[in-house]
Amino acid sequence: MDDGFTGFRIGVAGLGLIGGSLAKAFKSTGLYVAGFDSAKSVVSAALKEGAVDAAGCEPSILFDCDIIFAALYPAGIVQFVKSNAPRFKTGSVVVDCCGIKNKVCAELYSAELGGNFTFIGGHPMAGTENSGYSASYAELFRGASFILTPKSSENSVIIEKLRDILLKAGFGRVVVTTPQHHDRMIAFTSQLPHVLACSYVMSPCCPQHDGFSAGSFRDISRVAHINPELWSQLFIENKDELCDEIDIMIKNMQAIRDAAASGDKHTLAALLQKARDIKDACACGGQDAGKI
Amino acid sequence: MDDGFTGFRIGVAGLGLIGGSLAKAFKSTGLYVAGFDSAKSVVSAALKEGAVDAAGCEPSILFDCDIIFAALYPAGIVQFVKSNAPRFKTGSVVVDCCGIKNKVCAELYSAELGGNFTFIGGHPMAGTENSGYSASYAELFRGASFILTPKSSENSVIIEKLRDILLKAGFGRVVVTTPQHHDRMIAFTSQLPHVLACSYVMSPCCPQHDGFSAGSFRDISRVAHINPELWSQLFIENKDELCDEIDIMIKNMQAIRDAAASGDKHTLAALLQKARDIKDACACGGQDAGKI
Repeated sequence: MDDGFTGFRIGVAGLGLIGGSLAKAFKSTGLYVAGFDSAKSVVSAALKEGAVDAAGCEPSILFDCDIIFAALYPAGIVQFVKSNAPRFKTGSVVVDCCGIKNKVCAELYSAELGGNFTFIGGHPMAGTENSGYSASYAELFRGASFILTPKSSENSVIIEKLRDILLKAGFGRVVVTTPQHHDRMIAFTSQLPHVLACSYVMSPCCPQHDGFSAGSFRDISRVAHINPELWSQLFIENKDELCDEIDIMIKNMQAIRDAAASGDKHTLAALLQKARDIKDACACGGQDAGKI
Repeated sequence: MDDGFTGFRIGVAGLGLIGGSLAKAFKSTGLYVAGFDSAKSVVSAALKEGAVDAAGCEPSILFDCDIIFAALYPAGIVQFVKSNAPRFKTGSVVVDCCGIKNKVCAELYSAELGGNFTFIGGHPMAGTENSGYSASYAELFRGASFILTPKSSENSVIIEKLRDILLKAGFGRVVVTTPQHHDRMIAFTSQLPHVLACSYVMSPCCPQHDGFSAGSFRDISRVAHINPELWSQLFIENKDELCDEIDIMIKNMQAIRDAAASGDKHTLAALLQKARDIKDACACGGQDAGKI
């Protein structure tokens, strides 16, 4: 039975943790996947491993693809789309995968790109503390959200098509929102935890943790194994939203600190109860809830 | 072959997450285990489940035990040890399991307790975000540290005995240190992550996280499912060390915030690289490293 994707070609630009995992996820569904990466060693590894049907160190390998996922660093996305715009396949869709959307979408939605394709901002909501092709795996996105921040509702047919193919590849759901809302939410859900992990391990106690630590230490410090180049770009490109969230966080920490410092058990227990109530209410959602 | 524990009796006071898990872990090694809990329903459940050989709602159930683990709230430990001191078995050892050691040890090491037993401060380094007997399980402490903060080196024979029996029950190692060093390290490895989780979920963004979150959110917020009564006691009893760690954390967050806010990518990337280096160096240790 034709599921609407017979002969369909997926392209992936950048075969790092995210792009490599996307390529493997789509490949596992039986779709044709082409990969572009500037590193020859990555291209060889992806071909050898069967993560892609075709791969090369030039973007031209993607020019006959119907949907291209651009999994590049923030600084490289706009340049990649603009410089290859005239050569993308007519009617094709290019979706970026970068962790900030305001800046990328503002530049690419307002530009006269030329060519006959549609660009849509995107962000697959999964990752690990590791990076690079060697860290990629087909199941990374199993059950995860793929967030899309399209220019306007005129993209609704494209979005339905993207949703079909993303769910087929293992994503749990597709969430459509504005670049602005995306960036605020991601400042909280993703960027702030990275700030916290990095700030945490810089305590003088950290090197002595062995023998005194358990799950809390492991979880809070996990993403301190960070990619400094990528995340410094992401933080700076979203600095207003991120700084707001850091300020809120510090204010909340100060409230707990002050209650503890003054021995005010009533206020302290009330703050912790409030946190627990919020956490318990949040936990009702999850990756299976309310697909759009 | 006699392993030195034939006929040995373990007692556990307080069959919550920690005490219930200790009882189950010791029981699984074939040792006799008696349990005391003030809640009748917990005593019944522990007996029914076979987590203990004997159990009751009075401490007297523990009076023929050779080693008693007191897994009670901080506020209850001193009272429990003092009021039952004359009745503990001659030559027995009472180890508490509470997350702060300065205050408990100061009170119990200086007191004339009466009786013919030895009290040693202790802290099994595992837990979950859940609490109560129903959350307990035999494997909770598999590979974990058990920290002991004895009064003096005259306890070395007892400590060797405790070490043998704790390793037998699945702990990865026994760490011996001072109450002061314990409390500083625990402020960092355990209390601070709980402050962070609670402060984090109090952001106005938290209730909207669904669809925008992945592993970072899950890990940082996990322990916000907190026991407010227990942790407000722990925070206040260790407030000096905890407030120091909160202040260091806020200073580190401010440094990252300032670098992002001013768009200073060089400084920001250097801070993140520093964090990564520390994290990577820390990760070499782990629960198998350097048993004492």
